[in-house]
Amino acid sequence: MTLHVTPPDALLACDARDGVATLTLNRPAARNALSDDMIAALTTALAEVAADRAVKAVVIAANGPAFSAGHDMKQMTARRADADGGAAYFADLMARCSTMMQAIVELPQPVIAAVEGVATAAGCQLVASCDLAVAGAAARFATPGVNIGLFCSTPMVALSRNVPRKHAMEMLLTGDMIDADSACRFGLVNRVVGAGEALAGARALAAQLAAKSPLTLSIGKRAFYAQLEMGLADAYAYASRVMAENMMARDAAEGIGAFIDKRAPAWEGR
Amino acid sequence: MTLHVTPPDALLACDARDGVATLTLNRPAARNALSDDMIAALTTALAEVAADRAVKAVVIAANGPAFSAGHDMKQMTARRADADGGAAYFADLMARCSTMMQAIVELPQPVIAAVEGVATAAGCQLVASCDLAVAGAAARFATPGVNIGLFCSTPMVALSRNVPRKHAMEMLLTGDMIDADSACRFGLVNRVVGAGEALAGARALAAQLAAKSPLTLSIGKRAFYAQLEMGLADAYAYASRVMAENMMARDAAEGIGAFIDKRAPAWEGR
Amino acid sequence: MTLHVTPPDALLACDARDGVATLTLNRPAARNALSDDMIAALTTALAEVAADRAVKAVVIAANGPAFSAGHDMKQMTARRADADGGAAYFADLMARCSTMMQAIVELPQPVIAAVEGVATAAGCQLVASCDLAVAGAAARFATPGVNIGLFCSTPMVALSRNVPRKHAMEMLLTGDMIDADSACRFGLVNRVVGAGEALAGARALAAQLAAKSPLTLSIGKRAFYAQLEMGLADAYAYASRVMAENMMARDAAEGIGAFIDKRAPAWEGR
Repeated sequence: MTLHVTPPDALLACDARDGVATLTLNRPAARNALSDDMIAALTTALAEVAADRAVKAVVIAANGPAFSAGHDMKQMTARRADADGGAAYFADLMARCSTMMQAIVELPQPVIAAVEGVATAAGCQLVASCDLAVAGAAARFATPGVNIGLFCSTPMVALSRNVPRKHAMEMLLTGDMIDADSACRFGLVNRVVGAGEALAGARALAAQLAAKSPLTLSIGKRAFYAQLEMGLADAYAYASRVMAENMMARDAAEGIGAFIDKRAPAWEGR
Repeated sequence: MTLHVTPPDALLACDARDGVATLTLNRPAARNALSDDMIAALTTALAEVAADRAVKAVVIAANGPAFSAGHDMKQMTARRADADGGAAYFADLMARCSTMMQAIVELPQPVIAAVEGVATAAGCQLVASCDLAVAGAAARFATPGVNIGLFCSTPMVALSRNVPRKHAMEMLLTGDMIDADSACRFGLVNRVVGAGEALAGARALAAQLAAKSPLTLSIGKRAFYAQLEMGLADAYAYASRVMAENMMARDAAEGIGAFIDKRAPAWEGR
Repeated sequence: MTLHVTPPDALLACDARDGVATLTLNRPAARNALSDDMIAALTTALAEVAADRAVKAVVIAANGPAFSAGHDMKQMTARRADADGGAAYFADLMARCSTMMQAIVELPQPVIAAVEGVATAAGCQLVASCDLAVAGAAARFATPGVNIGLFCSTPMVALSRNVPRKHAMEMLLTGDMIDADSACRFGLVNRVVGAGEALAGARALAAQLAAKSPLTLSIGKRAFYAQLEMGLADAYAYASRVMAENMMARDAAEGIGAFIDKRAPAWEGR
């Protein structure tokens, strides 16, 4: 096990039980802003999870009334005092944050966002970057950068790959909040549960995934995002190769054998 | 006419009436698995349809409680006894199945799935690969390969081009069934009709299309999928060329003339 | 100010108030067909708007029972008398129309369609090409070219980038009308308002956008469409650069400062 379980008062509280790691943003007073140290903590935790074969599914949750308010505007503004007006810092910050978001996509395990309260700007991007998302009924989502003169350009990379074009554009141009039901209808979240039940809902979904073959989940997740960027013929050539190789893995032999014999499979792990 | 009408007890029952070919998967006892011979029968029938100018629209339907359960797991498992453990067979099978699915996309005529019962794995892919789909109210859809250690990687190529990302991911990671209404909401099927009425619904839609200019349908269908893989500027350059050429075709002159004269057009055919 | 305000009986009535330009298709007797002169008037007006820093948002509306019926079939048919049967004219017409549609996408300001009545063929494309769209409850949409032998190949470029694949295909293959609620559900329009209230709704939305930083809107709109055509890694590299540069703009400093100070920002303009 490589994931470091952190004390419950850590900036990012990490725990792992029954194959499910839960990473909890834990600076409620700062509305769980994606400050330098929060991005670093997430990056580290994701790297540890990737290497931890005991972790089969991941939940990203948050404490407090806000899931995450996005970048830390005060921290960013302070760097305007840098000799270059902050230019180098801002470029580096965006690179670090984008790398962290892509680490979620590249993680071998599925990642599920559990959203209560507001998820705005890079906080909304964090939800969009997860493979799946469960929202409490009172959750709300926005990309309000336009209101402060800083368009949510990196959040829109993830948002526009979840939400139909005109709805994504409306969120980005107006900065207005959408509610959980709209988020579900637009494809930003998979399901809406009762207010306060998002974590339980995400964990139940994670437990369901943790019972599958970790190798198979990792093969499939990687292939999903890879083939989406290809034309149809290339996607089929690639996915056919992936599937033929998957057939030769021990977990496929075990799973198909168990299916034919009508017994429970025993997975080997990644 | 090149489509061979088959006896009603054939593996794939083919008939053609009033310009509409209906291909019916007909191994209900095997849940219409896409076995080697079923893939071959579909491939042959699609090639015949493509060459048959009397066929103006196609319906793919199925007999029995399952539309199609996807690949034939027993047939695949038997090939593990091959000298290479089945590796060459699996690669060839995936290539043959992917080629058949793409033959639907490349077919000059529109293809409509008529779905009753469950469409799972490559059976779900078959629905997703059709241009349109009509589902009976009791139809259900899943990509459950993850449950047997063999991720539905080739089905996801078609699925993820129909269904928003997070919903597709949920189907692929959980393997859970979705009902017909969810399939309609997600974009996997166009409309839901009463249980048992999918074939009639698909045929009515096919009859509507069969009254259009076959040349125009084939120009448009080909252009639709081609332009989807291009950036906006290339797509417009391509589609503008297609449309200008379409204007020079006899059926466009006839159709526009009939429209201006307020009479019914007489199409020339492909 | 470079936008020429036109008399209210002009082919395209242009006016600008409070930062919002409204371009009104105004040949109701011709169902606002996109004739040569209408395409030219739109192209000119869009170029003027692009250069006009006083215009912060644009509404495209229409007078009469039809929003726009698309290309002018009588004008096109008349050119069959050309020495080449109209081939050169048709190619040029498609190029001019596609360039105009792309000018909407490339415009620095957001563009909102206000749709009452029917928007068909290139008229439907005009709606799909706008960043946002508001429809009156009685608005209807179709791509009926297939019915006259001329597939809506250029309209489908815009349509298929708004509407899920199978629903877009159904519109294109059948030519059938969809109502405003379906258009909203499919993503072709953002919201449906009472019949006759689309213009007021679009103007209210435009006024909301006109209060934002014009520079920020233009940065974000350009980046939105650019990153959609990239793979994920390239999109993040690009958007990170855009966002870091946006941070260095005066309007971001002003907007973030105003946010931290809890005061209204004073934008500098583009």
